Amino acid sequence: RASLDRLDDRIATAHERIEAGRENGEHGYAALNLPNRTDPDEIRAAVDQIAHPVDTVLVAGIGGSALGAATLAEAVETDADVVALDNVDPAATRHLLESTALDRAALVAVSRSGTTVETLANVQVVRGAFENAGVDWTDRTLVVTGEAGPLRRLADANDLPALAVPDGVPGRFGALSAVGLAPIALAGGDIEAILAGGAAGEDALAGGCFECPAYAYGAVSYALAQRGATVSAMVPYAEALESFGEWYAQLWAESLGKDGVGQVPQRALGATDQHSQLQCYRDGPRSTMVTTVRPRERPDLSVPEPDDPDLDHLAGTELGEILDLECAATTASLTATDRPVVRVEIDRVDARGIGELLYGFEAACVMAGELFEVNAFDQPAVEWGKDATRALLRGEETDSTRAIEERESLWIE
Amino acid sequence: RASLDRLDDRIATAHERIEAGRENGEHGYAALNLPNRTDPDEIRAAVDQIAHPVDTVLVAGIGGSALGAATLAEAVETDADVVALDNVDPAATRHLLESTALDRAALVAVSRSGTTVETLANVQVVRGAFENAGVDWTDRTLVVTGEAGPLRRLADANDLPALAVPDGVPGRFGALSAVGLAPIALAGGDIEAILAGGAAGEDALAGGCFECPAYAYGAVSYALAQRGATVSAMVPYAEALESFGEWYAQLWAESLGKDGVGQVPQRALGATDQHSQLQCYRDGPRSTMVTTVRPRERPDLSVPEPDDPDLDHLAGTELGEILDLECAATTASLTATDRPVVRVEIDRVDARGIGELLYGFEAACVMAGELFEVNAFDQPAVEWGKDATRALLRGEETDSTRAIEERESLWIE
Repeated sequence: RASLDRLDDRIATAHERIEAGRENGEHGYAALNLPNRTDPDEIRAAVDQIAHPVDTVLVAGIGGSALGAATLAEAVETDADVVALDNVDPAATRHLLESTALDRAALVAVSRSGTTVETLANVQVVRGAFENAGVDWTDRTLVVTGEAGPLRRLADANDLPALAVPDGVPGRFGALSAVGLAPIALAGGDIEAILAGGAAGEDALAGGCFECPAYAYGAVSYALAQRGATVSAMVPYAEALESFGEWYAQLWAESLGKDGVGQVPQRALGATDQHSQLQCYRDGPRSTMVTTVRPRERPDLSVPEPDDPDLDHLAGTELGEILDLECAATTASLTATDRPVVRVEIDRVDARGIGELLYGFEAACVMAGELFEVNAFDQPAVEWGKDATRALLRGEETDSTRAIEERESLWIE
Repeated sequence: RASLDRLDDRIATAHERIEAGRENGEHGYAALNLPNRTDPDEIRAAVDQIAHPVDTVLVAGIGGSALGAATLAEAVETDADVVALDNVDPAATRHLLESTALDRAALVAVSRSGTTVETLANVQVVRGAFENAGVDWTDRTLVVTGEAGPLRRLADANDLPALAVPDGVPGRFGALSAVGLAPIALAGGDIEAILAGGAAGEDALAGGCFECPAYAYGAVSYALAQRGATVSAMVPYAEALESFGEWYAQLWAESLGKDGVGQVPQRALGATDQHSQLQCYRDGPRSTMVTTVRPRERPDLSVPEPDDPDLDHLAGTELGEILDLECAATTASLTATDRPVVRVEIDRVDARGIGELLYGFEAACVMAGELFEVNAFDQPAVEWGKDATRALLRGEETDSTRAIEERESLWIE
């Protein structure tokens, strides 16, 4: 608490900086305006142009262009399945396309630049699969992209419904825009409730660490990182928040992991990973801050009475109660050895809850970026890798391909 | 290379220690004998007692009692789906049971002690679901457990087929025993080929770091950890190895994360996480060693020719080729900024390949344990958490529940 007190002035200053950035719609800061800026009707109008029924929504995108939708889809009730095509694995892609009823599927292609290799390759592959199945792919493809580029041209040439990636919003901050919401709307999810949750998060922003849980999270992360917690383990205690862990990992890694600072995000899942990671959190290198996320309300499912008298303690117990006790045990286990643990609670895992959760962590991340004094909104190392992959594919020689040839290596067989 | 040279004597000594431990069947070291000790016929005989057909194998287990089977199931061809019930989430469990045809399902309950709270709770819940569906659960339940305890009593009282957890083998080292193999056999997978892969790994053990890739991996991990790499990121470039990353994370965290040493394992997936984690690996805290795992052979799936001349470089490209180039680009990206990266290759992702891979990493982990001078085979912090959960459930007061009450906290709303 004393350390946070000392940070309070810096937090107030950072808050003013963030508010100014939002007001002017500056790159990155603009993301925090999305809940009130995103128009759900525009998304619904685009989605309505897709042929129905839709049982499976395939999202071709990678990184921020897929993780937002995947995270929302897991937490929100939908009629259709949402499946991210966010890799270029031939085995998995073949299996997916063979097991999907393509005459009841739709494709959402997401890339701001419209040039991302994996996404373009997957769009071509899915288009080919639609054609082989005798399905008119132009009836079942929606594009979310920038003003120009190959994906925009594809939409124009084939009269596909297209939504714009909002200006000033890096991909990983785009969950509450068309990038994250279009697939959910197409799957029949309540995007208005997601945005309402985000708006509640927006209303809760305030210039002091003790009045604003989101900023407090960012400040605590920064303060602990300065004290050696270079790893941030995210441990949601709900299966429907497993993808949230991946979304957080991207947000944290790309926004803060630069200039040698930041935290390496580690995703885990409670209670499962108590039987896997807890040993290391508690007794391993003193480098890890653990965050648990817990919904206050869960569905009922009680344990039927066992025959065995030794198991009486289980009779009639709610599964959710066991899960909450596990969460408490983890917290105790860590605090008992002076390892830092932060507990985040939400009301429940639903459309509103996930909207608020994502917004809160985005605000936390922007605050942490101010405190770490890094640009939270670029990702130079990722761009380097994208360029290298494109150059390798084209057989071109560039600085990055030369770096590949010059690397020092030792090979053991 | 020079650092490894300096380690070579210690590796030779450690190898002798490991060989002696194997010969005497010492706790932990005994795991490295499993490929030749596990009897596939015994597993098949137990599995044959289960009523067929089986379309879904539910594995009630947590940590090492589930991850081995999950990892194998993802990589090996099977007729039935293998689904791990390795959490106590009421929402996910209800959804799973509602969407499973229970008259064509089977349950494998795995716990050495037979007292693991999550596993026992799930066994009761599945048993109840079988009964509600009018299915005789005793025809469709197989138990893998120790000599005594509630699960053993359950098997005896209901005449269930039961397999023994092998002596001297901690759960996380049990993938190549009945613990990992029984669910695969029940699902129709080739457990003999898995064991043959493991046996090939066993044959490859040798007393020098440059003759034995497994020991080299353990030694490199240790040497890099000593130089500040307290995080080990595992990045398989194959979707069918995603669970392998989780298995590795448990193996590494529980075996080595003690006495303040070890490495915090971070699981990721290539190429997906290049668009998520690479930024932090390359430019974030200098704390991370990255391992890529790549199969040399992948199925074919080529990209249909795009209409757009700007995308000519994609025409006819194999998805697998793109994935391999991404892997090369990641390696280049990291080496260009002097961040350490280790590449592991296997022939292909299949039963033999995964058997060899798991064995190799187990041997690497045992070697690293010797070099870190920790007991790689216990997990005191996990036991603390298990005791705390049980005490909380029973409403008992113990040291661990008192630690929960006494913890220092700050709550921000």
